[in-house]
Amino acid sequence: MNEYQEIREKAYAANMQLPKLGLVLFTFGNASAADREKKVFAIKPSGVPYEDLSAENMVIVDFDGNTVEGNLRPSSDTKTHAVLYKHWEDIGGIVHTHSTYGTAWAQSLKPIPVYGTTHADHTTAAVPCAPPMSDEKIKGNYEYETGFQIIDHLTEQGLSYTDVEMILVGNHAPFTWGKTADKAVYNSAVVEELAKMAFLTEQIRNDVRPMKDALIQKHYERKHGVDSYYGQ
Amino acid sequence: MNEYQEIREKAYAANMQLPKLGLVLFTFGNASAADREKKVFAIKPSGVPYEDLSAENMVIVDFDGNTVEGNLRPSSDTKTHAVLYKHWEDIGGIVHTHSTYGTAWAQSLKPIPVYGTTHADHTTAAVPCAPPMSDEKIKGNYEYETGFQIIDHLTEQGLSYTDVEMILVGNHAPFTWGKTADKAVYNSAVVEELAKMAFLTEQIRNDVRPMKDALIQKHYERKHGVDSYYGQ
Amino acid sequence: MNEYQEIREKAYAANMQLPKLGLVLFTFGNASAADREKKVFAIKPSGVPYEDLSAENMVIVDFDGNTVEGNLRPSSDTKTHAVLYKHWEDIGGIVHTHSTYGTAWAQSLKPIPVYGTTHADHTTAAVPCAPPMSDEKIKGNYEYETGFQIIDHLTEQGLSYTDVEMILVGNHAPFTWGKTADKAVYNSAVVEELAKMAFLTEQIRNDVRPMKDALIQKHYERKHGVDSYYGQ
Amino acid sequence: MNEYQEIREKAYAANMQLPKLGLVLFTFGNASAADREKKVFAIKPSGVPYEDLSAENMVIVDFDGNTVEGNLRPSSDTKTHAVLYKHWEDIGGIVHTHSTYGTAWAQSLKPIPVYGTTHADHTTAAVPCAPPMSDEKIKGNYEYETGFQIIDHLTEQGLSYTDVEMILVGNHAPFTWGKTADKAVYNSAVVEELAKMAFLTEQIRNDVRPMKDALIQKHYERKHGVDSYYGQ
Repeated sequence: MNEYQEIREKAYAANMQLPKLGLVLFTFGNASAADREKKVFAIKPSGVPYEDLSAENMVIVDFDGNTVEGNLRPSSDTKTHAVLYKHWEDIGGIVHTHSTYGTAWAQSLKPIPVYGTTHADHTTAAVPCAPPMSDEKIKGNYEYETGFQIIDHLTEQGLSYTDVEMILVGNHAPFTWGKTADKAVYNSAVVEELAKMAFLTEQIRNDVRPMKDALIQKHYERKHGVDSYYGQ
Repeated sequence: MNEYQEIREKAYAANMQLPKLGLVLFTFGNASAADREKKVFAIKPSGVPYEDLSAENMVIVDFDGNTVEGNLRPSSDTKTHAVLYKHWEDIGGIVHTHSTYGTAWAQSLKPIPVYGTTHADHTTAAVPCAPPMSDEKIKGNYEYETGFQIIDHLTEQGLSYTDVEMILVGNHAPFTWGKTADKAVYNSAVVEELAKMAFLTEQIRNDVRPMKDALIQKHYERKHGVDSYYGQ
Repeated sequence: MNEYQEIREKAYAANMQLPKLGLVLFTFGNASAADREKKVFAIKPSGVPYEDLSAENMVIVDFDGNTVEGNLRPSSDTKTHAVLYKHWEDIGGIVHTHSTYGTAWAQSLKPIPVYGTTHADHTTAAVPCAPPMSDEKIKGNYEYETGFQIIDHLTEQGLSYTDVEMILVGNHAPFTWGKTADKAVYNSAVVEELAKMAFLTEQIRNDVRPMKDALIQKHYERKHGVDSYYGQ
Repeated sequence: MNEYQEIREKAYAANMQLPKLGLVLFTFGNASAADREKKVFAIKPSGVPYEDLSAENMVIVDFDGNTVEGNLRPSSDTKTHAVLYKHWEDIGGIVHTHSTYGTAWAQSLKPIPVYGTTHADHTTAAVPCAPPMSDEKIKGNYEYETGFQIIDHLTEQGLSYTDVEMILVGNHAPFTWGKTADKAVYNSAVVEELAKMAFLTEQIRNDVRPMKDALIQKHYERKHGVDSYYGQ
């Protein structure tokens, strides 16, 4: 058995969830799964239709973005994944999609406010929106810089990547992550739903305010706190 | 046969309808079915994916919220169900979802006005929106208080739970109920559709007014009045 | 073979198209097919779920709204169908749905303007919206009066039922008709699509104007004029 | 084997993709595939439902719009296809749909601005919107003139048909093209998604500005430039 078989399978399964969840059109998305000990991750090959994917054609890449194994070119966003894996020790999966509502918020350069408990069940913060980079960085090592743009924006907002597992990259689209590739996929569906609900909420009431803090804390804590009582 | 088999089956069937009707993402919802004589209800276990549900893993809970039978932890919203069953003698089922449009209205803290006959076919009142609770209640016995928040808001609005089988909990999402779990599921699909139609109506015409009272009464009566002539 | 078998089959097939086309939730719609020689029509029984329908349980009703054959109660909107069949000699089918976007326009009491060729391919007029009836008529023979409300509003607008095969009943929802029940179903899907496109158009540009007349006439004529060249 | 079998198959496959991608209601769309050597194209017959299509009933038409082979009348938009094939030497396929969001933008007479990388991955320009034609042209050889309207508007905007493979025809709907019929279908799904994202973006933020040029160029170049690194 291939020494990377486990992350190949995980990355393949995660990628295949994206069209099923209605999060990607054609090849507009990619998921990866990391092996933290070997310091590599398996990622979707670039531009290959989902119906042609297999665990075998996932590309194995190290945390500096170098291909370790595989005949296909990895996703064009590979360096962004590599930067996040390298700097965030506790994540095991990353997903990037151009899901419709999440992308619309990213295009509007606005964070998604915490309007309800659906949001607070996942994070106490607005889903942050990293601003577009300088022209210099865009023209430089673009995907690599995108990784740092994500990391830096979280830091500037005083947020931890373990507390907020989703971000909008301004003018681009959402990136999500998590302990596992499955969790990152879950987060990408969640951010799309939060984006749609927040859009509708602002349309229904243009003077809407974020939810009160006590309710934000309550819902986050019941699912993630030390005394959480959600799930088994 | 298990003495709770009937409500287990009903609760299971009701829960499984929610993803089919497009009302839940992942595990964002729960349905329960009550046995009014035994004063217990069967409810979805917390955080278990719909594909792993069975009649057998429904949790049996009494009207004070204590687990009577079952190895899994019941839905985190169980106490809200318990309070409603305890205080409303004529209901046999409760459903809670975070359906998209209903949740957006709840997040906007606005009741859904009666704009058309689709609404009046189900109730003569705007779908009420209970305000968020005080911080004290939120930090206290939250889900239990949510039940009272629902009951109290209906009372304040002069509404009966037999006339209005649906409510929005502000900043949270819809709760629905009915004589049976099936009817509660039906009501959860109805409130989502009413929420979508009302959203669109206000977008099409920002000075729209609720429908005239004669038409509201007519449609409600033809379906629910003593001389109703809808259905068989 | 039952003497009404042909219209039973047609009405059944038409009704079954409605959920497939996404035009009805639960039982919120009904289709009928007429036998103009026998002066009767077959219509959906009231409140029966689509999965329980069959050609056999369609109800046969005459043009005055009296049940001629069938053990089930006909649709609560039967008298509206009867009035239209009685007064419009050239129609063979009628459909009523509460489709989401069409109903939202009806709730806004606004006709759907001709914003594009998709609309003009079907009619040169805005889809009319009949105003709500007087309280007296609502409290009287409501469904019967709804038929006249439709007929009278078309007349007031200077429109012929052969040129405009769809209408919104204010605060209620769309009714459509046509030479056949199939055509009426087709028209009910068309009015929903026109309603959605017009809603979006006004959102994208709040000062949008109806399409120029030459283009309206061209598209209508190429499909319906004496020199039409659409179709086979 | 029929000498046009290859383009028959391609046109058939392209047409069948349209309902699968949710881009057409009933028969509101058509796709064609060209044989540039024989100077003919295969196109959908007019008004024939998708379920009745086959490679065999595609109609073969020359670049002047004359039917070369086939018993059915070709799509009513055939002359528009013919004009584009005749004047644009590098295209092998054309698709026309009335997809919902693209049509709404066409009805609003507004080009779709470049709000994000999803757009820039496909073109650096706003999706152009050709204005409605003069009444004279509409009343004249309408579909033929529509072809020239498309060509002329691209030219006026300083755009090349190889750089921008999609356009909105004002008050009508999108047309797309490409090296192959498959690529034209792909572009028709892309323009619908761009239209939806741009609509939402403007709703979320009414003072939104197009994306900065460096980012537009970067995304276009990484997919289409001489040093592109997207795909295999």
